[in-house]
Amino acid sequence: MKYNYLNNLPLDEAKQKLYDHLTAVGFRGKTETVPVTAACGRVIKNAAYARICSPHYNACAMDGAAVKAKTTFAASDRTPVTLTEADYVTVDTGDPLPDGCDAVIMVEDLIDCGGGSVQILSPVYPWQNVRQVGEDICMGDMIAPSGTTLTPALCGALLAGGVTEIEVIRKPLVGVIPTGDEIVPPTSDPQKGDVIEFNSTVFRGMLDSFGANVKVYPITPDKKELIRAAVETALDECDMALVSAGSSAGRDDYTSEIIASLGTVLVHGIAVKPGKPAVLGEAGGKPVIGLPGYPVSAIVIMDEIVSEVIGQYYGRPEGPRETVKATLAKKIVSSLKYSEYVRVSLGRIGGRLIASPLPRGAGVITSFTKADGVLIVPQNCEGLEAGEAVDIRLNKPLAKIENTLIVTGSHDPLIDEVADFLAKRGAPFRVCSTHVGSMGAIYAVRDGHAHMGGVHLLDTETGEYNKSYVEKYIPGGKAVTVKGVKRVQGLMVAPGNPLGVKEFKDIQNLRYVNRQRGAGTRVLCDYLLEQNGLKPDEINGYRNEEFTHTAVAALIAAGNADAGLGIYSAAKMYGLDFIPICNETYEFLVDRDSLDDPMVRAFLDVLYSDEFQKRLAEMGGYSPC
Amino acid sequence: MKYNYLNNLPLDEAKQKLYDHLTAVGFRGKTETVPVTAACGRVIKNAAYARICSPHYNACAMDGAAVKAKTTFAASDRTPVTLTEADYVTVDTGDPLPDGCDAVIMVEDLIDCGGGSVQILSPVYPWQNVRQVGEDICMGDMIAPSGTTLTPALCGALLAGGVTEIEVIRKPLVGVIPTGDEIVPPTSDPQKGDVIEFNSTVFRGMLDSFGANVKVYPITPDKKELIRAAVETALDECDMALVSAGSSAGRDDYTSEIIASLGTVLVHGIAVKPGKPAVLGEAGGKPVIGLPGYPVSAIVIMDEIVSEVIGQYYGRPEGPRETVKATLAKKIVSSLKYSEYVRVSLGRIGGRLIASPLPRGAGVITSFTKADGVLIVPQNCEGLEAGEAVDIRLNKPLAKIENTLIVTGSHDPLIDEVADFLAKRGAPFRVCSTHVGSMGAIYAVRDGHAHMGGVHLLDTETGEYNKSYVEKYIPGGKAVTVKGVKRVQGLMVAPGNPLGVKEFKDIQNLRYVNRQRGAGTRVLCDYLLEQNGLKPDEINGYRNEEFTHTAVAALIAAGNADAGLGIYSAAKMYGLDFIPICNETYEFLVDRDSLDDPMVRAFLDVLYSDEFQKRLAEMGGYSPC
Repeated sequence: MKYNYLNNLPLDEAKQKLYDHLTAVGFRGKTETVPVTAACGRVIKNAAYARICSPHYNACAMDGAAVKAKTTFAASDRTPVTLTEADYVTVDTGDPLPDGCDAVIMVEDLIDCGGGSVQILSPVYPWQNVRQVGEDICMGDMIAPSGTTLTPALCGALLAGGVTEIEVIRKPLVGVIPTGDEIVPPTSDPQKGDVIEFNSTVFRGMLDSFGANVKVYPITPDKKELIRAAVETALDECDMALVSAGSSAGRDDYTSEIIASLGTVLVHGIAVKPGKPAVLGEAGGKPVIGLPGYPVSAIVIMDEIVSEVIGQYYGRPEGPRETVKATLAKKIVSSLKYSEYVRVSLGRIGGRLIASPLPRGAGVITSFTKADGVLIVPQNCEGLEAGEAVDIRLNKPLAKIENTLIVTGSHDPLIDEVADFLAKRGAPFRVCSTHVGSMGAIYAVRDGHAHMGGVHLLDTETGEYNKSYVEKYIPGGKAVTVKGVKRVQGLMVAPGNPLGVKEFKDIQNLRYVNRQRGAGTRVLCDYLLEQNGLKPDEINGYRNEEFTHTAVAALIAAGNADAGLGIYSAAKMYGLDFIPICNETYEFLVDRDSLDDPMVRAFLDVLYSDEFQKRLAEMGGYSPC
Repeated sequence: MKYNYLNNLPLDEAKQKLYDHLTAVGFRGKTETVPVTAACGRVIKNAAYARICSPHYNACAMDGAAVKAKTTFAASDRTPVTLTEADYVTVDTGDPLPDGCDAVIMVEDLIDCGGGSVQILSPVYPWQNVRQVGEDICMGDMIAPSGTTLTPALCGALLAGGVTEIEVIRKPLVGVIPTGDEIVPPTSDPQKGDVIEFNSTVFRGMLDSFGANVKVYPITPDKKELIRAAVETALDECDMALVSAGSSAGRDDYTSEIIASLGTVLVHGIAVKPGKPAVLGEAGGKPVIGLPGYPVSAIVIMDEIVSEVIGQYYGRPEGPRETVKATLAKKIVSSLKYSEYVRVSLGRIGGRLIASPLPRGAGVITSFTKADGVLIVPQNCEGLEAGEAVDIRLNKPLAKIENTLIVTGSHDPLIDEVADFLAKRGAPFRVCSTHVGSMGAIYAVRDGHAHMGGVHLLDTETGEYNKSYVEKYIPGGKAVTVKGVKRVQGLMVAPGNPLGVKEFKDIQNLRYVNRQRGAGTRVLCDYLLEQNGLKPDEINGYRNEEFTHTAVAALIAAGNADAGLGIYSAAKMYGLDFIPICNETYEFLVDRDSLDDPMVRAFLDVLYSDEFQKRLAEMGGYSPC
């Protein structure tokens, strides 16, 4: 193999090596002076001190009469004091306290005696109803220490303290160089072999959140000299360069060779999965990072390393990440050789925060779109058991996670559609759906890992759906099934049905694509095989497993398989021919304690609404239960 | 009084009234179509579906030989299979799988036989080492439901799914109109009576975080016609108008009159403190909000109401705010008439999260600069006791709060200076300092509300500092004092000492400014009074209390008082004359369990460093203990 990693350094060592080297070469942000009115979000270089007091003059805090307090000391109900025009000055809130005065009598306490005289029935003490100089901020007080990120309130305090300009760290400019012969700009019509360049968009968003500006360079083909020239340009124009590799082998070696020729390669290969094939280096006093081509790997390196390099630029120490304790919903097996970053979705059920691992492939960007947090399985750990208490590093505020309806089980696009209707109605919660098959729904609801789950499990003895499974696996009535939909299952085949498929048993001569074990559609497949006297081993593709109806449809549409079982709406979406086989009952299994949960009720409200039934009719193949 | 609030509506009712009215007039964001590459952070109008699969072709997942899997089925160690050039195609990772092939053999598993032939010792199964069409995303799958805020990963997933443009809610433009005759643009040299206009900068920062663009209009004087014209212009050009009132009375009535003449006033006066004098209205289908002039009041209304109006514009339901349970460090008295928003700082001590209330004045912007969260004392609640468990709504992520060193007690600017040195050294924690006097430090450390506190309490019988107090109030050795500094205390008087003050007893003829009860400097004052045979009642200004040395200095510099006790560095900062009185011992009281806390140790490391001693010498009046 051409891959020749210099190291397999543990992540912390890799970070430290880069940090120490960048410190040694003096990598640190330059500064610029900006108006405080435009400084929100910026990081200040030095401690900021108030230049004036706030208020900077003695200000009347009430509308009324400014006086010398001692002229009022004798006032009482029985001994009113009369003040003539010579004794007081009429003032409004915010007015400077007139010279010689040291208190304000509120206008409500003044009894008009005519001719400009007023009477009072109680005294005021010195400085009563006056905002004295420095009440909020005193000249010379430190408003914020060095390295503070300015909040809106801090900008307000600086201006109140007479600070109108401030020295801040210049925002770093990060150059991103997408590379690869097969890489093309975003398009909805890519040619076979084209890989859509979306990583730079992901990086741009992440870098923005780290406080960096971004310059994305044109896509550079896989030519060492061209990539080298692009890196040189980026190092010339930016504070840091990121080389985004394509997916073909050996690309990383280009990056490391190029960095070595321009400066120093510090790390090549990190013991983290995904993320392993990263290159960390420096040239001309600036960091150069080679990012893996797979988006998930690149995101891990961005989040773990690039974010900290930006922090180092700002002189901002990496604080602790926000973590929560959660219960792991599913067993995880992990490699001893790497620390592994497993993306999880989170939700609270009956007081417990449940972490459900998402797909782990490095190419699966959707595992990050759905991730609420990351579970880091340490190096030298073989894995974790379902039900274990684990630490999850959060990607989003916990408050956004708390209100999550977890729907799991059998895949049906209608779940996402319900979620969309709920969002349109402004529901104050989100829906997190995962596809683990009907049996997965039963286990998840039984174990308190989901509020509800879609099930369509055929009891081949009774011909009934779901009931006997629920009774068997969840005894004691801990869960109930509620009405869902009827939907048509059938064989999906290529448009025009070129192979002339007529009925289920025809699959024995075809390339079949199956669903995963535990899926209701898999149970149906096995039942149909038995009915037709067929054995799994006789079916070409029986072990070719997919997790959703659309994935099966996609493979048939692409010609990877000739036939697969699925619902009509998936076939319709892909323009496939469809041979109906049965009309099945798709229901929702709901944890009994969650039946009154407003999220569950809102979900079912949408599902049963006329408006939603219309949407189902558009999708096709559904009918009311 | 001119204030004539139409209502004193509870906050929730006020919000609901505004929400319902804005819904009725169809206040909702228009949309625009933007490239997905620039859509990060935007809110999508409708559900987004994948237009193509990702991968959109069968891609080789390894470098090696693409084959028909069935040609390899016979291969084993004992029965190698030889493939000729006709049987395979050499491929690289990412290449499209050649037509007719359905698997890839890894290059490591190929034995070169010369002449283009290769041998293999094990079979590959169909689709092995191939990323099949739709492995990540299937065409037609919902990538995100309506109303989703696009993250970097979601933008990546959209591009991977062939979505290059997307309909998003147009960012709202909010017009901010600062008003007031006394308001001036930011300056470091305001004239008496000038109020620095910093609220619009605070609003700009907050609105940005709510997802809105901002247009700040020129400062409008207190003329009804001019303000009305400005509101009309803002409503013409923007999606929403905010009228930022000055601090003078009656301004709110202008706003409500103007709104009434242009549209509808819904609420005038809300039962929330600070924030009461807010006006909520609508004109021409757009919200118009009159914000109170005091910054803290305005911030509460921005945070509670304006943020939700922006949410309504986006169709984004207001999610729950992040809250934590904390232990209240100090008693709070509250009005029955309002719900009260008390800003608190937070920190963890011995496992408990401690909430320390910050100053509550509506003019105290610094209470927001230091706030980690807000304690909402409900309407009809008289207050809360120290030690009570309370809910705190967080302003910042909990992880940023966890690592906080809480230093309380006697005021000395050196604490902020140590915090600054720590920040410069990149310490992975922050310092939160509050000024509650030396006795406050004793109570706070005793009760576990602070890690450490500054103390300089003179035992008037022994002449010793601190020891006897600690023994009396914290028996059992729960806390210890550690070395601090010696500092010079004395009388601060106006520059040139115009009143010829020579010694402490001269204050009997002057306007004195005192420190608060419990302050070490107050103890010193009382001791000196007794020594000089003076009684508190004989001192003009004995009850005029300030919380810091700089506040005392500021009042003397402003001419509000003639003399006050304080440390030399404060006098120096304000250019005051200084009559030294004693050299006192300022020490730190540390909770014994916190002595080994790395934060406490880092703090003391800085304090005792040569570098810091130099800084103290610059400040003046300090000497080593």
